Amino acid sequence: MSDQPQRSRERKTYETFHPPKRLLLGPGPSPVEERVLEAMSAPVLGHLDPLFLQCMDDIQEMLRYVFETNNKVTVPISATGSAGMEAALVNIIEPGDQIVVCIHGVFGERMLDIIERAGGKPVIVRAEWGQAIERRNIEAAFDSSKPRALAIVHAETSTGVLQDLSGLADLAHSKNALLVVDAVTSLGGHPVGVDRSGIDVCYSGTQKCLGAPPGLAPITFSERALERIRGRKSKVQSWYLDMIMVEKYWGSDRTYHHTAPILMNYALREALRIVCDEGLEPRWQRHESNHRALVAGIEAMGLQMNVGKPHRLWSLNAVRVPEGIDDARVRARLLNDSNIEIGGGLGPLKGKIWRIGLMGSGSSRENVLLVLEALQKALNAEGFSCASGIEAAEAVS
Amino acid sequence: MSDQPQRSRERKTYETFHPPKRLLLGPGPSPVEERVLEAMSAPVLGHLDPLFLQCMDDIQEMLRYVFETNNKVTVPISATGSAGMEAALVNIIEPGDQIVVCIHGVFGERMLDIIERAGGKPVIVRAEWGQAIERRNIEAAFDSSKPRALAIVHAETSTGVLQDLSGLADLAHSKNALLVVDAVTSLGGHPVGVDRSGIDVCYSGTQKCLGAPPGLAPITFSERALERIRGRKSKVQSWYLDMIMVEKYWGSDRTYHHTAPILMNYALREALRIVCDEGLEPRWQRHESNHRALVAGIEAMGLQMNVGKPHRLWSLNAVRVPEGIDDARVRARLLNDSNIEIGGGLGPLKGKIWRIGLMGSGSSRENVLLVLEALQKALNAEGFSCASGIEAAEAVS
Repeated sequence: MSDQPQRSRERKTYETFHPPKRLLLGPGPSPVEERVLEAMSAPVLGHLDPLFLQCMDDIQEMLRYVFETNNKVTVPISATGSAGMEAALVNIIEPGDQIVVCIHGVFGERMLDIIERAGGKPVIVRAEWGQAIERRNIEAAFDSSKPRALAIVHAETSTGVLQDLSGLADLAHSKNALLVVDAVTSLGGHPVGVDRSGIDVCYSGTQKCLGAPPGLAPITFSERALERIRGRKSKVQSWYLDMIMVEKYWGSDRTYHHTAPILMNYALREALRIVCDEGLEPRWQRHESNHRALVAGIEAMGLQMNVGKPHRLWSLNAVRVPEGIDDARVRARLLNDSNIEIGGGLGPLKGKIWRIGLMGSGSSRENVLLVLEALQKALNAEGFSCASGIEAAEAVS
Repeated sequence: MSDQPQRSRERKTYETFHPPKRLLLGPGPSPVEERVLEAMSAPVLGHLDPLFLQCMDDIQEMLRYVFETNNKVTVPISATGSAGMEAALVNIIEPGDQIVVCIHGVFGERMLDIIERAGGKPVIVRAEWGQAIERRNIEAAFDSSKPRALAIVHAETSTGVLQDLSGLADLAHSKNALLVVDAVTSLGGHPVGVDRSGIDVCYSGTQKCLGAPPGLAPITFSERALERIRGRKSKVQSWYLDMIMVEKYWGSDRTYHHTAPILMNYALREALRIVCDEGLEPRWQRHESNHRALVAGIEAMGLQMNVGKPHRLWSLNAVRVPEGIDDARVRARLLNDSNIEIGGGLGPLKGKIWRIGLMGSGSSRENVLLVLEALQKALNAEGFSCASGIEAAEAVS
């Protein structure tokens, strides 16, 4: 009955997959510690097994610590970070709602796309890719509209820009709008402080600064956000991401919604244990100091950071590709010669920056030195002679 | 700034999680073989690493074999089975579309909910829970409406009913409607035959007869379904599940969409290798023969199956709870005394049936004997004296 060209639906034989151990210093996934991988090879439990329910409770408690929140609804969505973005937006938007959306990279663009699909009316605030959003432009958007929410990316993974959130909650709340924050690349590596910052909806991914494999999207909703959701006139457009239903499974009701990805939750639980053992503040400091060491090394090599100093992410470092150098060839050298993955630029920054991630256990002085050395080697091989960045990086406390 | 009651967002200390090894004979997740768990502890690759792209290609090829299809778009959705259902429906439905939806259990009800959230106009065909949908009722629905699709569950996990699909594609296609089939609990355990059966959209889960952990939803779209999607007037309401974008990542473009759950894909690849090694036909036969052995044992114990013989799933067996017996107490005994998980009934069948899954590697004669023995022991302990089912089960070839 098929009218497609013949494709091979026959049975095939494949060898066991033996991926090499790469040093993951790109925009994520970040390196996963051995004990997290080990946690995933434990026996699978049923999704309603009393022992798995306990595992879910532990995860929720530890997520509250990491998000710095008392929010009751603080759970991992059973899909990757982008589904966290979709869950954050579709739960609070009803058709016709005006939403101020800040765009200074791929993930702001993605928010815009999701807002439009949910029937929201976007009020767009833009900055150049590589710049932060300016507060006065957000204020102007609020003055010219009656928004129900302000959506902004805290850590723009596509550009390496850290967005200052201070004062945004007061601005939003004074106009009866919710503050929605993308913390995919900051949570666990930078202070986010959901309650302190007055964030109403905040989501992240497991595969960045939290150090778990990709597959879950931690998310938290304030009481103000939950009130908005409870007062909806229409159902949330996504069944899978409907937080009222998701919460009934994760909360005290334990009502079956979907089958949770059991092993991903084991992994997240173990990764969160590591975060708790280290403590948030020391973890932020580690991310900061290794970022500073990388920057010192990069600049000693005669290369330039693409983002101005006050706006640099610690977890994701955007380095300018020198004039005349082929971005992709250098990345291929790092991957093939040194087994190190770094990222390229996206959109207007394609070919113009490298993105070096120092996230979770990947943020170590040893890795900073490894990537600086490999980058110098690759650049020299491409005919761009540059000094070593090692000494400068080692000098950073 | 929080106005919620104080909750514990302090740092806590948790022990390593050591779940016991349960025998998973419920409605899923099913037992996961050791080599699949081992595959998940391989080093994490980046989602655009050339070696991971090869892993993705292998998975697509093996999924075509399992679905028995030549469909180009045959991929795992990066979320659990229910997200597969949502992806199947939201991609093909535009607001106002009439959709014939067959409901004879939880998953038909879920389809209805998703259809309505997508703005579809449902034309409902019902059967009692535990019965199959009657062909003439589907025909009547087509006569009274101009549906754009027919949505039906092949294997109703909530009731243990196998739905005959024969002739449904001809019926749907003659009226310019697509055939959408939920094969979550049948794929890999029962013949589905996407191309043979003329199915346009078919989805499944990894944690049933395919023997991988939960976390992905294999799905396939026929050329007819893709034409429908390409001709849409509106964007698909879900960004995360938009197949045009998902396909660009899985297909030749390799355009970044979201970060795939790397380790879940390693697991699925290894589970599919097991399916390919065994071969589909022997795998179906194994599921059938162990089902027959279980039924023989159950009936020898004086218990009754809840579904009529022609409509019984091999992968999920609904057994009536005897009059006066507390369903949950018996299941708790199985779990606590024998480390065996079986499922209870849902909705109108709550308290009335047990659901015994024999899926993937869980479908073995040994497991049939183990669950029969444990069930007899638990029933006797609850004061319901019954004979052994072992001999009858062993006698089945």
